[in-house]
Amino acid sequence: MFLEDPELDDDLPISYMSPKELYEHSVRKAVIIAQRLRDLRTEGEDNIDTYTALFGGALGSALIKEGNPMMLHFVMFVPTIMGQGTTEQQIEWLTKAWDCSILGTYAQTELGHGTFLRGLETRADYDVKSQEFVLNTPTLTAYKWWPGGMGHTTNHAIVVAQLYTKGEFRGLAPFIVQLRDLETHMPLPGIDVGDIGNKIGMKSVNNGYLGLKNVRIPLKNMLMKNQKVLPDGTYMAPKNSVLTYGTMMFVRCALIRDLSQTLAKASTIAMRYSAVRRQSPIDPNAPEPQIIDHTTQQLKVFPQIAKAIVFKTTGEHIWNMYNNVTGEMEQGNMERLPEMHALSCCLKAITSADSAAAVEICRLSCGGHGYMDCSNFPTIYGMTTAICTYEGENTVMLLQTARYLVKVYAQALNGEYLVPTVTYIGESIKNKRFGAFDGSLEKIVQAFKFVAANKVRIAYERMEKYRKEGYEPETAANRVGIELTQAADIHGRAFIVQSAYIELNNLIRQVSPELGAILKTILELYLIDSCLARIGDFLRFINLTDADVSILELRLQDCLKHLRPNAVALVDSFDVHDRVLDSALGAADGRVYERIFESAKKNPLNSEPVNKTFHQYLKPFMKANL
Amino acid sequence: MFLEDPELDDDLPISYMSPKELYEHSVRKAVIIAQRLRDLRTEGEDNIDTYTALFGGALGSALIKEGNPMMLHFVMFVPTIMGQGTTEQQIEWLTKAWDCSILGTYAQTELGHGTFLRGLETRADYDVKSQEFVLNTPTLTAYKWWPGGMGHTTNHAIVVAQLYTKGEFRGLAPFIVQLRDLETHMPLPGIDVGDIGNKIGMKSVNNGYLGLKNVRIPLKNMLMKNQKVLPDGTYMAPKNSVLTYGTMMFVRCALIRDLSQTLAKASTIAMRYSAVRRQSPIDPNAPEPQIIDHTTQQLKVFPQIAKAIVFKTTGEHIWNMYNNVTGEMEQGNMERLPEMHALSCCLKAITSADSAAAVEICRLSCGGHGYMDCSNFPTIYGMTTAICTYEGENTVMLLQTARYLVKVYAQALNGEYLVPTVTYIGESIKNKRFGAFDGSLEKIVQAFKFVAANKVRIAYERMEKYRKEGYEPETAANRVGIELTQAADIHGRAFIVQSAYIELNNLIRQVSPELGAILKTILELYLIDSCLARIGDFLRFINLTDADVSILELRLQDCLKHLRPNAVALVDSFDVHDRVLDSALGAADGRVYERIFESAKKNPLNSEPVNKTFHQYLKPFMKANL
Repeated sequence: MFLEDPELDDDLPISYMSPKELYEHSVRKAVIIAQRLRDLRTEGEDNIDTYTALFGGALGSALIKEGNPMMLHFVMFVPTIMGQGTTEQQIEWLTKAWDCSILGTYAQTELGHGTFLRGLETRADYDVKSQEFVLNTPTLTAYKWWPGGMGHTTNHAIVVAQLYTKGEFRGLAPFIVQLRDLETHMPLPGIDVGDIGNKIGMKSVNNGYLGLKNVRIPLKNMLMKNQKVLPDGTYMAPKNSVLTYGTMMFVRCALIRDLSQTLAKASTIAMRYSAVRRQSPIDPNAPEPQIIDHTTQQLKVFPQIAKAIVFKTTGEHIWNMYNNVTGEMEQGNMERLPEMHALSCCLKAITSADSAAAVEICRLSCGGHGYMDCSNFPTIYGMTTAICTYEGENTVMLLQTARYLVKVYAQALNGEYLVPTVTYIGESIKNKRFGAFDGSLEKIVQAFKFVAANKVRIAYERMEKYRKEGYEPETAANRVGIELTQAADIHGRAFIVQSAYIELNNLIRQVSPELGAILKTILELYLIDSCLARIGDFLRFINLTDADVSILELRLQDCLKHLRPNAVALVDSFDVHDRVLDSALGAADGRVYERIFESAKKNPLNSEPVNKTFHQYLKPFMKANL
Repeated sequence: MFLEDPELDDDLPISYMSPKELYEHSVRKAVIIAQRLRDLRTEGEDNIDTYTALFGGALGSALIKEGNPMMLHFVMFVPTIMGQGTTEQQIEWLTKAWDCSILGTYAQTELGHGTFLRGLETRADYDVKSQEFVLNTPTLTAYKWWPGGMGHTTNHAIVVAQLYTKGEFRGLAPFIVQLRDLETHMPLPGIDVGDIGNKIGMKSVNNGYLGLKNVRIPLKNMLMKNQKVLPDGTYMAPKNSVLTYGTMMFVRCALIRDLSQTLAKASTIAMRYSAVRRQSPIDPNAPEPQIIDHTTQQLKVFPQIAKAIVFKTTGEHIWNMYNNVTGEMEQGNMERLPEMHALSCCLKAITSADSAAAVEICRLSCGGHGYMDCSNFPTIYGMTTAICTYEGENTVMLLQTARYLVKVYAQALNGEYLVPTVTYIGESIKNKRFGAFDGSLEKIVQAFKFVAANKVRIAYERMEKYRKEGYEPETAANRVGIELTQAADIHGRAFIVQSAYIELNNLIRQVSPELGAILKTILELYLIDSCLARIGDFLRFINLTDADVSILELRLQDCLKHLRPNAVALVDSFDVHDRVLDSALGAADGRVYERIFESAKKNPLNSEPVNKTFHQYLKPFMKANL
């Protein structure tokens, strides 16, 4: 319904628009989409999948490729009221929000602070006389920065601020703040709001800034499901701070699934282009081959196809785990929360970093044509690399996982019970030697865990050494920051290879032997490629020889060779719609050159044979000396 | 003179313009710059450095940051006429070109072919009756694609085409083709010309496409210094095809020097931002530290500073070598040409790939703010990653180097004489064992060479094996494509670490002990970081232990610690002008947040408090259900 709607088609490729034109174009489309959603809802036909597809998934990126300025209304404003508002607050705000008679966003990050929430400077002082909160961004760095849609689209925001009542600091709290007049859309008194400017990607999200100067809001505008302020200013702390982990884990787990879809897009484009493009003879007596016949090109493209499939298994695995753990948590069992939190952190970091790198490998594999906007790689990269920073900057994420791992290591040394995903750490303490490496996929998975356990050990031992020298725990942790991030990285990778091994082998048993053989090759390619990429760690901790490495190298090449005949079919099986790919290089019909040319012809510069600057500047200059 | 010219200042940051507006804005500035150049020339004050600075260097990127649409006129059109035109042709064309009464570009790459020149499809058929060439792009893929300025700026191009005379194919030749009428700028009959559309970077270069349909040009328009066509169609082949290597080597060597400047820019921005930004306590009782105090941040930024310095030494080294080799070549001595060609290929590939990666590391080290255009990272990345593809795609470059290296390996096996930069290959055959690794910088340099020699050996041996199995040499080479690129990569890196070791040690002897100590740390950081990045190769071929690796890791951390107090001073010493940096995050005054905010305020979206889309779309939608 959405993809076939002509009103949502772009006549002019958006890369020819100015940022302002793009914003206006995107608001028009966002309203059409929201109107369709409202209709679906009226008919009782909306559901969670509709929202996920339109705002998180492939469909959303096909409709408004640089991001929907109303997205945060649906994915943050509404859910936060649901999660953190009392029943009365939900009745008051949720009705309007669902109905889009108000539009909101979520304002947390500031110009001066992102990941470290305790550093936020925006404050809300409770004035007991008027029973109002007074909100201020006391410095330039306290300005809210980044909220999607806040620039010129929304008229409300949930503002996260440091709460003070009775002159005492109480911690962070969320407040519903009206930003603009409902009739005129003019910013209300004390509110300085606008768009933060252009970026690598997410160009039409309308990310905004917000300054607040003595902005007064009533007591009831603080979301009070978890913590409360009474009319007299009495503060009642939240019962369980653990709950806030839930949303973060949810978002990070969802991102992993999205990233697998991103890889499917990027590898489809690179693969199809590599099957159309012909260049540089291999056999000097034959015509130029498809470039995918060059081994070096196979090494660029095929591992990204494998990664798309493997990250899908990781995504499913972690998603099931997340559902189990939240199920247990709802029954009061918090045992697996730290494990789940730690895993979601490092997996978000690894899959986003690997996916961004994979997109660039795919783009570069398309040579100069990948550099053109019509390839769609620039947009895909912009959206993907952003994930390395948002929802928790990747290095901070790895450090959070590592903190958990060194704690586990200490427990393991004490012989304590360890939860499933870290049992391998305990085993490595019992068996300090890996034994023989036979090159089987099972052994490679074991080797990843063994390497991870050793990296955790090194981080733990060096940190202990610094602590014995008298450093504070935090200072010692900073000194071993590199070891900690490396340990978290390889821990996450051990989880990924193990998931892939289990899930793909399950799948292989269920499909035809022919398809099973291909999936087996995908698994082998991913495992050996991952292993060779950090072969130093394997050689360091496991008794591998030069001959073992040579065998792995040659097996990798065999995988490439086996995949070649099925490579196009594999990306076809991803079944990514042409509108979602939106790439002259990757469309299903393979009309690469025709589509590139059609895209160039649409350039508004080409609508006139002679640009006005010839008469204004070039001609007077060229003729000046004649 | 140029940087202080108010006419060349951008009132509106260019990232807020549409591509068409940006083009028009850039033509205006390009003409001002060219007029200044013409004035300088009239006064006899222009020289080669002026042109290098304005079209290749930092100054050029400060004046027209997304690329000058007249650049190819000065760096390709004029030099090609000088290099490949006869004296008569130079008299006819060079005068007009120097004077800019005509503007030209260089059209070689086609929609369907880039690096593989023999595959070009554009053809020039000599018509003996009219003594004219008839030029055609017989297919869509034959369209010229990419020439800078060709879209709407230039009125001439040097078109490279497959030459046919007397019905026989003669090879590639360059032709001067007039594209547009000198008075009206209208495309001439048979000419289809325009702009190829938007790209990741080089957004104002006006890269063009060109289709030719029976375009006739006189005999004298073929550049005939090296090869000739006589009026009767007799073809006289060039005496020496080696000469064309000269320009390619020149450009690649120049790029390495430019890339060092790029790294200086990127690392300056990241370093200064990391000294201003404060986040996440290390000591829980102290205020938030500058983020550069986090070890993980140091590991991101400091190696890029070191790389900027090291690539400068590589650039100087290769530049001197290039001058020596061309000097020898002018005296008829071609001995070192293959060595020089091979080195320039792999170094172009390595330095461009490493620099592009370094820019992204620097950007990501600035968190969300690096994602904004006002950081200038998006433009720097766009310009840098392009170098991975143009002037010879990086994988093709590595394969060219590798072809040379396996030839050398065969010579070494025969005990033949080897030129200086590959002597190590011969030595590794004589001494198959590396001996003890003591961790000294000298040993690390030697270890790089030893690893490189082994990688060359593996490529050679596997290729020989395939040849003995009956594969043609080219097919065998394709099968070991991965081994070949790896060998070329590590060969280039061995050259870089050796250059750095020699050049920086020379420098250290000439400066104060304090400065010498810092340069020593820079060298050590670069060497150890490079070594740890491919520690698998070292562990595989050299008898290193886990303890050796641990020592290297801890030494790397010591380097970071030693550099910390001097890190800001180091980037200050790069002395990059604020206009060249053009970054809110990196300006010398450290007013990061103020500059980010000022940049946001300039967004044209913010010039009105309410965008028209509120009345057009948002309000009707929000009010619909009330």
